[in-house]
Order: sequence, then C-alpha cells, then structure tokens
Amino acid sequence: MFIEGVKVEIVPLEFRNGKIRFIDVTKLPEELVYVKTDNVERLAKAIERMEIRGAPAIGVAAALGLAMVAYNSKAKTYSKLAKELYDAAERLRKTRPTAYNLFWAINRIIKKFNELKNKPLDIIKSEIVREALSMQLEDIKNNISIGKHGASLLKDGDTVLTHCNTGSLATAGYGTALGIIRYAYHVQKKKIKVIATETRPLLQGARLTAWELVREKIPATLVTDNMVGYVMSKGMVTKVIVGADRILLDGRVANKIGTYSIAVLAKHHNIPFYIAAPTSTIDPKSKEIPIEHRKPEEVKTVLGKIATAPREVEALNPAFDITPPELITAIITEKGIARPPYDKSIRKMLGLK
Amino acid sequence: MFIEGVKVEIVPLEFRNGKIRFIDVTKLPEELVYVKTDNVERLAKAIERMEIRGAPAIGVAAALGLAMVAYNSKAKTYSKLAKELYDAAERLRKTRPTAYNLFWAINRIIKKFNELKNKPLDIIKSEIVREALSMQLEDIKNNISIGKHGASLLKDGDTVLTHCNTGSLATAGYGTALGIIRYAYHVQKKKIKVIATETRPLLQGARLTAWELVREKIPATLVTDNMVGYVMSKGMVTKVIVGADRILLDGRVANKIGTYSIAVLAKHHNIPFYIAAPTSTIDPKSKEIPIEHRKPEEVKTVLGKIATAPREVEALNPAFDITPPELITAIITEKGIARPPYDKSIRKMLGLK
Repeated sequence: MFIEGVKVEIVPLEFRNGKIRFIDVTKLPEELVYVKTDNVERLAKAIERMEIRGAPAIGVAAALGLAMVAYNSKAKTYSKLAKELYDAAERLRKTRPTAYNLFWAINRIIKKFNELKNKPLDIIKSEIVREALSMQLEDIKNNISIGKHGASLLKDGDTVLTHCNTGSLATAGYGTALGIIRYAYHVQKKKIKVIATETRPLLQGARLTAWELVREKIPATLVTDNMVGYVMSKGMVTKVIVGADRILLDGRVANKIGTYSIAVLAKHHNIPFYIAAPTSTIDPKSKEIPIEHRKPEEVKTVLGKIATAPREVEALNPAFDITPPELITAIITEKGIARPPYDKSIRKMLGLK
Repeated sequence: MFIEGVKVEIVPLEFRNGKIRFIDVTKLPEELVYVKTDNVERLAKAIERMEIRGAPAIGVAAALGLAMVAYNSKAKTYSKLAKELYDAAERLRKTRPTAYNLFWAINRIIKKFNELKNKPLDIIKSEIVREALSMQLEDIKNNISIGKHGASLLKDGDTVLTHCNTGSLATAGYGTALGIIRYAYHVQKKKIKVIATETRPLLQGARLTAWELVREKIPATLVTDNMVGYVMSKGMVTKVIVGADRILLDGRVANKIGTYSIAVLAKHHNIPFYIAAPTSTIDPKSKEIPIEHRKPEEVKTVLGKIATAPREVEALNPAFDITPPELITAIITEKGIARPPYDKSIRKMLGLK
C-alpha cells in the first residue's frame, strides 16, 4: 500500500465487516500469524498479553475495538449503545496503564460519540467506525511525517541505535523511530546502518525490529542490551532514536525498560538521543507516569518457553522507565522537532498556552 | 568444607587420582551435573564451551589440567614429559583469550616445572600436582581474604548490584564479588540485599548467581540487564561489586560484557563501583586487552535452545568490555583495597616498582 507516495508494507491491524484482524506479534519471527476477532474481551487480552503492543498500535487497536462494538451493536437506543461503548472502553482502559495513546484514543472515540448524541443510531455507529478508521490512517500518515522530520537529522554514514520495536508492528503502520530509519534509508536513500538491542524480557528488538529490518534489507546488527555501552565506546553509534509510551509536558518520557540506561550512556558518550512519537503520545495533564509492573515470570523465563533462573528467586519486571528531559536531545513528532526547553517547545507544538 | 573458619559449600573443581571432576555450569540451574575427565582436550573444550567459566576457575582448571597430564604421564624422560606438558599448555592457552588468570596459572606451572629440571621424574610429577593443588587452595583462601577486605566496605541496609557470576562457580570456591557478599552476610551477619543482573547472552547471573544466592538464602532480586538504570534511579542500589577477567596496571579492567555500561550508570548515579579479583587477574605487562568475540548464535538464541531473532540478522558478541579506571571506586584483592590513582596503588600492592 502507498500512502502519500510512501510504501507501507506491513499493516498490523485491519478492521473489516465488524471484525479486527491483527498480527499476533508474540509469534514472530517464527510465524506471521493473523488473528480475527469481533470480541472486545479477546482484543483486551491481546493487548494485555502483548500480542498487540507498541503505544500507537495499542491506541489504534482500542479505537478499532470501540468501532467494532458500535458496528456490531444491536442496541436500539442511544443509552444502550452508550452502555456497550462505555463498558468496552472501561475494559480496554484497564489493559495497560502506561502508554498514553490508549487513553487518548478511547477518549477521542467517546468524545465523538458524545458529540453525535442527537443523530440517528445508524449514523452514530457508522460515524464511530469512520472516526476509528480515520485515526488509523492518521497514525500511518503521522508516522510518515515523523519519518520525514526525523530523517532530516540523519546523514550518510550514520549508525542509529534503537531499542525495542517502534516499527510497523508497533503502530498502525510504518513506525516511529523505525519509521525515521525506513524513511532515511528507503525514501532518501541515505547510507545508514542500524544497531538493534534485543530488549529483554520480551525481546521485541530481536524478534520484531530485526524481523522488520531483515525484511526490508536495511543493514542491521543485533546486540544484547548490555552491549550498548560497548558499541558506544567503540564509536559504533552516531545517533540513538527510540519511541515513547507517554510524554509529559516537561519532557519526561516513559518508554520500554532500558531506554533510560541507553539515554545515560548516550549522554556519557556525547551521542544525540532522540525520541520519536506522534503527539497522541503526549499527556497534557499528568504530573506523574504510572509504570506497569508485569509478572516476574517474564524475567525468569524466555517468553515462557524456557526457565532461565531458579524458581525461588525474586525478580523485578517494570515494563517501562522514565527518561528525564536533560538526557533528550530532541523529540520528533508529526508536527516537527521539539528541542529543550521542552516545557515551552512541547506546548508550542500542541498549540497550548 | 571449612577453610580458615569459613564455610565453603561449593567447590566446582576437584582433582583426584589423575582425574578432574568439574561442575558443568551450563546445566545449571536445572541440574547439578558433575563431569569427570582425564583428557586435556575434553578440559579445553569445557573451558571453550563455558562448562567451566569465571577467570579464577579457568586458571585453576588449567593448572589442574597440567597436573593431570603430569600425574598420568608415562614419559620416561624429562624432555618427553616437557613435550606433553607444553602441548597441553599450548592447547589450554588457546581456549579463551581474555581472562588473565588462565595464562598466569599455566605460566606458574611451567615455571615450576622448569625449576624442577634436575629432579627425578616422579618428584617432578608429584611436585607439579602439589603446585596445582596449592594454587586451588590458594584461590579459595584469596577469595576469603577478598571477602574480608570487601565486606569492610558494606554496611547494614546496603543493596549490592552484581553482574554475571563471580561466586563459587566462577572460582576454586567461595567467589570474588559474590565472596564479599557471602562474607558480609554469613560471617559478619550484615543485613544486605543483592540485585543480580541476568547477564545475557549466557545468563550467568540468572542461572548461576541466582542459584548460589537462593541456595544460601541471601535476599536477592533478579533483573534484566536493561533494568540497571531503572533500579539505580529509584535508589534501590547502594553499591556495585563485580569481578574481573583481566586488570592492567593502569587500572583498566576487562570483565563480562555489560560491566562497562553498569560502571557508567553507577557514575551517573554516584554509586560506588568496586572490582573484586585476586591479584592473579592482574596482567603486569600488557598495554591492551584482547577481547574474545564469540559466535553470533549465542545472541540470536537463548542458550542454543530457542531462536530469538531471524536467522538472517547479523549479531555482535563481544564476551567482555573494558571499564576505564576513572569509573572504578576501588579494586579489592586478597592483598587489600587499591584506590586511585591505580598506576601507583596496584604496583604498590604487587610490590612492583
């Protein structure tokens, strides 16, 4: 598929005839498995189990989930449809606490629904579906814009270190940090290389980022998370670009666990450290970011397949960490590039006072 | 077994009747498997495959390997025995390039052998065995001394972050960094806790350190390598203690990949960062440290058991990195605690000019 002249190869979410089809990314890279469902509980479970993951992808999935409820609803009254939508929204909100896009997307659909109050039910239902689909397309377009803005920072010979997966599989398509890499390499034909961290515990870098890069023949080297200091000290990294799960107005950024360590290491080696995310990731109200703690088993095993530690040992499993603004060189969104001081530049970007 | 009044529970290497019995640590934590061999090639393979690993353990294994050759030799002349020993030494030297203790141990046995030149063959053989066995006992005693010196730096309430495995399984017994933790907790009864990094790719932290800590009921939490910044930023770490594979006179330290990243993170958070190693790890001559690069498959799989990345992707696998002296608070050996400037303090410790 071509969007704004840019080839978008992998679209992990599709809404058709009241069903959502998604790529179960937990099965990659061994198998490319598509799952179809018309059930909100199944969709919520998919987000919780990280069959669908990546902040923008979660947001779009939730929007499509509410569209699915509206599309399939047999409600004959506004209040019945409202209850169905609010119940679904409540379930989806509980799936994962950190990524802001989830709440942003649900709120946007609910707002749309409220605005449609006096319309006929059929119109309301189809408008909800239309809104969700436009959010999906918007996310892909935003990623291409992020790609364009971010690629302007890259030049021939750059090696970009990235963490976790921020590609097609983490968004509605194309990707944020990986979208920048894609755009620089494929559209601008810049000679860049990538170092991907494997990203324990769930190995999104090894399983998903490496899979996307190999598929698109972008030169890439996989490293374990603890090799980041080594490759930086050897001069093998010229830029770091990662995604975000939530950005506060002061420039603090929650992203996949390990991001903060990479940011400190980048600072120590004077390597620019960039965040790439759509503005739907920016939380304009919160002062703190809730950090999801997942089951210790994810740390004590590899993907639940093999045990790597004695059963009795305790393990910590925060899914995210927070990188403070002083470690971030710039934040790249679809609206442009925000630079410090972020408390001013982010507000300006959003048109806030 | 009690050595100098300290309980030493796990002894990974034993020499008896011309055979070496070793714990194949690649089988832990699932199984405690002992392997017996009287074959140098088998022993060399065990070191290469990291069935025996940890710088002090490798050194002692090589010394016992040469003792095994001497013990079992049917040579009737000094020159025949010399050839057998030199061939074995050459094979063992080729196993792994970075840990200095290997070369130190082989050189010490060969030196002993040369000193015995005019003695009867039987005496030479038994003296070689005696030398190797005394090196093994010495290593355990050195670890207890390291434990004593290092534990003086710990106090109630400390949480020590450690990397890889530096315990009984990495030495002739007791351990270096883990020996300090053991000594502080069990001998001095200090209320300390441990955070152990899993240490990809071969997971010595998860498999071996967690196993030793659980066995000895020392409070421990396992984290993935990319959680180090997170736990430090949360104030959960008060000291870092790691081992070493080679220490240069200027204070540069080669240790398990990931050590350098932890040292940078410790510096950023003002957390003391200590190296613990016997003086047999100090290389008094080299200006550079050869870094072993192992097979990419170790990074693209977990222990060769499950693939974690697409087959086509390239992967980097340096087994060690180098931490510069400015990131190291102190180096703890059996002879005491060396502090910066290391180019003076290490020489003084060794009695060098």
